Amino acid sequence: MPRYKLVIEYDGAPFCGWQRQTDDPTVQGAIEAAVTRFSGEQARLVCAGRTDAGVHATHQVAHVDLTKAWRTDTVRDALNAHLRPQPVAVIAAELVPETFDARHSAIRRHYRYRILNRRSPAALTRAHVWQVPWALDAELMHIAAQRLTGLHDFTAFRAADCQAKSPVRTLEKLNVTRQWMGQHGEIVIETCARSFLHHQVRAMVGTLMLAGCRRLSADDVADILATGDKTRCGPLAPACGLTFVGVDY
Amino acid sequence: MPRYKLVIEYDGAPFCGWQRQTDDPTVQGAIEAAVTRFSGEQARLVCAGRTDAGVHATHQVAHVDLTKAWRTDTVRDALNAHLRPQPVAVIAAELVPETFDARHSAIRRHYRYRILNRRSPAALTRAHVWQVPWALDAELMHIAAQRLTGLHDFTAFRAADCQAKSPVRTLEKLNVTRQWMGQHGEIVIETCARSFLHHQVRAMVGTLMLAGCRRLSADDVADILATGDKTRCGPLAPACGLTFVGVDY
Repeated sequence: MPRYKLVIEYDGAPFCGWQRQTDDPTVQGAIEAAVTRFSGEQARLVCAGRTDAGVHATHQVAHVDLTKAWRTDTVRDALNAHLRPQPVAVIAAELVPETFDARHSAIRRHYRYRILNRRSPAALTRAHVWQVPWALDAELMHIAAQRLTGLHDFTAFRAADCQAKSPVRTLEKLNVTRQWMGQHGEIVIETCARSFLHHQVRAMVGTLMLAGCRRLSADDVADILATGDKTRCGPLAPACGLTFVGVDY
Repeated sequence: MPRYKLVIEYDGAPFCGWQRQTDDPTVQGAIEAAVTRFSGEQARLVCAGRTDAGVHATHQVAHVDLTKAWRTDTVRDALNAHLRPQPVAVIAAELVPETFDARHSAIRRHYRYRILNRRSPAALTRAHVWQVPWALDAELMHIAAQRLTGLHDFTAFRAADCQAKSPVRTLEKLNVTRQWMGQHGEIVIETCARSFLHHQVRAMVGTLMLAGCRRLSADDVADILATGDKTRCGPLAPACGLTFVGVDY
């Protein structure tokens, strides 16, 4: 059966995450329904990163097997037509060999987290940022972040319901930069790893926020990582600030 | 009476433009209602640029006179509290002399227009871009745009209901650049002038779009400007792609 690789963009706000659920709207459910309406087939999607409720994607990747060999432009356009008006778009579709697996062939996932660091609420970007009203020092956050990169047991930054067999991951990058937008700063956190634990990025961001307002030092952050003591972590950063931005194969 | 200068951000989508109307929700109406709830006063706002329905702002400027001398942080925070949950935020409030007039003291207005140039619909940025599915050449658009800068009679790019006394304006900048976001291009048009005619930016963008897909040459665009022939202009670009991004005083 021909296998199609799909690159997908979505706004996570109206969805209960990626993964199909019986009663709630999900991104996977929306795309699978569009596949059925377009092709008549009950195909299942496999994706690179099963995002949580409210998390966005500019570049999610999934694969799907269909019995018929459609033109890839037809697959893309037909899915987009059937997805309307939901905020999900298939940006690209291509034929791939059956050895390609959107989940298992991925060697690196990329996420971006946006913090709007100002006193006033977000008006234009409210669905895409975490608004933190007190002053954050992005340089301190970046310095603390460097204590988290590399191969570690990330138990401290793992959800209680995380199903991964091992809490050990290699964090390849965790960069914090301040970007000035007009007179107000947005703090952008960019990270990548082969894979992440459930809630890992948002848990790390919440803890770095505490480093940014000097409630934790870089040594404290390293100590939280070393001891696996969740109780000293910051709050779980809200889902709406997180975007899945790419996958390397 | 103390005069306050307000810097305001808003999402234009739910509003029928800036200007107060009896029955429809407007940005001015929302802020004036918040002023009344906070101060008890029926004050009127004067702004730098009365944006149309659906047009956004990252940096609108308005002034308002109140009888009482409040702390400026109080004015900002109280207005934001009363504006909730509408997508309007007062980013800054400051005391200014009565000689400051948000409209008449402005010497330059800045606008940005975003075109998402790809076949697939916008999922994440749908409320902030004009999605144009056919290929556009941003360089051709920029070259044509340069024929519009300077002092001209902009009758061709003026709304039928434009109330300005003269159609003559000095367009100081009209830059078109392609910005790559992942694998897809966004075309950004940045423009500034002392003032614009009603619909001028959106009319120019629609015409530059035709230059981008080679349906108009730069000479054609110059000729449309010279003859004032509206019938040869492109479509009026949709409001949602336009953002008011700054004012110089």
